[in-house]
Amino acid sequence: MTVQIPRGTQDILPGEVEKWNYIENTAKKICENYQYREIRTPIFEYTELFQKGVGDTTDIVQKEMYTFDDRGGRSLTLRPEGTAPVVRSFIGHKMFGNAVQPVKLYYNGPMFRYERPQAGRFRQFVQFGVEALGSEDPAIDAEVIALAMDIYKQLGLKNVKLVINSLGDKESRLRHREALIDHFKPHIGEFCADCQKRLEQNPLRILDCKKDHDHPLMKTAPSILDYLNDASKAYFDKVLQFLGTLGIPYEIDPGLVRGLDYYVHTCFEIMSNAEGFGAITTLCGGGRYNGLVEEMGGPETPGIGFALSIERLLAALDAEGIELPVGHRTDCYVVAIGEETKPAAFKLLQALRSAGFSADQDYLGRKVKAQFKAADRVKAAFVAVIGEEELRAGKASVRNMATGEQKELPLEGFITAFKDMANRGEA
Amino acid sequence: MTVQIPRGTQDILPGEVEKWNYIENTAKKICENYQYREIRTPIFEYTELFQKGVGDTTDIVQKEMYTFDDRGGRSLTLRPEGTAPVVRSFIGHKMFGNAVQPVKLYYNGPMFRYERPQAGRFRQFVQFGVEALGSEDPAIDAEVIALAMDIYKQLGLKNVKLVINSLGDKESRLRHREALIDHFKPHIGEFCADCQKRLEQNPLRILDCKKDHDHPLMKTAPSILDYLNDASKAYFDKVLQFLGTLGIPYEIDPGLVRGLDYYVHTCFEIMSNAEGFGAITTLCGGGRYNGLVEEMGGPETPGIGFALSIERLLAALDAEGIELPVGHRTDCYVVAIGEETKPAAFKLLQALRSAGFSADQDYLGRKVKAQFKAADRVKAAFVAVIGEEELRAGKASVRNMATGEQKELPLEGFITAFKDMANRGEA
Repeated sequence: MTVQIPRGTQDILPGEVEKWNYIENTAKKICENYQYREIRTPIFEYTELFQKGVGDTTDIVQKEMYTFDDRGGRSLTLRPEGTAPVVRSFIGHKMFGNAVQPVKLYYNGPMFRYERPQAGRFRQFVQFGVEALGSEDPAIDAEVIALAMDIYKQLGLKNVKLVINSLGDKESRLRHREALIDHFKPHIGEFCADCQKRLEQNPLRILDCKKDHDHPLMKTAPSILDYLNDASKAYFDKVLQFLGTLGIPYEIDPGLVRGLDYYVHTCFEIMSNAEGFGAITTLCGGGRYNGLVEEMGGPETPGIGFALSIERLLAALDAEGIELPVGHRTDCYVVAIGEETKPAAFKLLQALRSAGFSADQDYLGRKVKAQFKAADRVKAAFVAVIGEEELRAGKASVRNMATGEQKELPLEGFITAFKDMANRGEA
Repeated sequence: MTVQIPRGTQDILPGEVEKWNYIENTAKKICENYQYREIRTPIFEYTELFQKGVGDTTDIVQKEMYTFDDRGGRSLTLRPEGTAPVVRSFIGHKMFGNAVQPVKLYYNGPMFRYERPQAGRFRQFVQFGVEALGSEDPAIDAEVIALAMDIYKQLGLKNVKLVINSLGDKESRLRHREALIDHFKPHIGEFCADCQKRLEQNPLRILDCKKDHDHPLMKTAPSILDYLNDASKAYFDKVLQFLGTLGIPYEIDPGLVRGLDYYVHTCFEIMSNAEGFGAITTLCGGGRYNGLVEEMGGPETPGIGFALSIERLLAALDAEGIELPVGHRTDCYVVAIGEETKPAAFKLLQALRSAGFSADQDYLGRKVKAQFKAADRVKAAFVAVIGEEELRAGKASVRNMATGEQKELPLEGFITAFKDMANRGEA
């Protein structure tokens, strides 16, 4: 009879939503300090955007997208990731011509992938991400990584580690690609159907296969780091040096790859080491995508970015037992005794709210005792009572619920007197 | 070659997005003071939710929804409005059993309707809304209206007016319904096909028809206010009295209707009077929906809420020439002279950011002069320079860009010294 919530999605309710706001506001503040500015793109895009910008051969595009025709017959897709929309916007709004360069952007919002729901994996999930477009200074690679690390650090996470790799430039990638094909081709029959396709399409993605993860050839596969040319090596060294300068520890993992063809040079993940966190350990992934803007029809523009999952961040906070400093505050609960006091009580309530206090009253026609109980339930710091007597005297009786102190305050000039009492109450 | 943004949607870019954040934060703060708490529901729901909760016969459900099957064959719909999802969540999470009653919630997020895009009307638009579930105290109707008015007031809008009506209780609505049928039936052939269907389904909705708006029978249609029974009249009077108590002016419009069958008693719109605002004048709409929770499979629960459009709010601010106090701040731009000073400059930059300053450096390998130009472009308040000499001396040279004042500050303990200089600079 009742309609359920769609599978793989969740409501975020009061009590929990405050944590989301805290995390998002912290991340936004850090981005602003790093001079990244917010961009909001639509929830859906024309499907070809992701075919082009994520790649036709990826699992995301082949298996996981929410794709549908609108009433005009155009194919739309709920965004499965944030980079392609930002690049589409960068090109469409000609941001490559902006006076301020590089263009540093961040976004925060829901993404959609049709996957089997499981612990920590949702079909609608929230990603916070940044993109820096227009610079290929290794310092900005370090900046982007430092920004992500700062978000975790400022939220109090201790058990996070940075894993980094370089995919080199195009030339290095090509040489490595050939080595990979040579390595896997003789035994490709032992691999899954997806990997057999990947061999020619993008052999790098074989290293990322979840099914063939334990095949002995995986361990002995040629490392990209052995195929970096001098320029790529120098670039990677610079990035690592800057990380050292900033005191950010890292672990190099030559097996860390990002499947997209446009990815070059730096790629990284931030993982949680927290005990009992189980299988979900990657909190954040990012990398350099110098070919993407061009591929999508814009001028040649280097870019780097990352995306982090808010759901996984919350799970990591839980795993480390970190309580965010959030809560729900009720400064004052207004109790009206008798029907004729209601207007005066309501006016008082609204005056409190206008003065920036969080305040409430009864809306269930409760008796006085039950109104006090309601005030207790919301942990009101103060209760202001207006009965017939108070109304005649033009006063409200205010009780500090922590100390029991009680005072009569005039309705005229109430806010000033209340602020006074509240400040003393807090001290 | 390049992929366009989907028709009827928009990117919200830096420079504009700050206004959105300001508005949303203002509205959130007001909600918190009114003791409404945030809820986030998914972007899509099972289609039957809206068929049930918005109504099979509405334009929204019949013509405007983005509906599609997921890969498992379930029909999903991008939410066209926020009330049905909140009620679904209220029932699913058994909030009717919460200790704190009524349950007061707010939401903020994108909604989707496939309409012909025009000025101020988008296919993806953002609604900020509140729902108060569990009370039928006329005071809470006034509270909900006061909350909406407060949002406009705190943002500085002057030319807004509240238009209010009562649809009465079920009995009153039924009597009015019969009168409407009697009124329109003899001439229903002169009305549009939609209205002919509406006559039996929901004749109230004829009054809302955009096509037949000028038909003479519209003006002479029986007014709901003449059909209110005593209880409904008393309820409406109480709501109006409370609005009077709170000093909120209103205009009664007996022609204001909300099409849903569950709507009873109070319904209202907030309109902009601003000159040159043109056809789009409704900023916010709301009403009481006492039958909805039950209709959707929950226990009998009264409810009232509103939704306001952020896009129209922005247009109203524009029409009144109101500039929100938003901007983009750069506290310090760090200039490095010479390759070997880059690590020290980067460390300084990160120290500034960690201390809560918004700061940046060059990532384009620019010469000193161009770096200063870049600092100018982002209107940096201070520029900190590290050249070889400064590096040797363990100092940075800091210039106040407004006053021209220049000082050497030690890299060791830089932040304290910089705070000092910045505070004086602001004074």
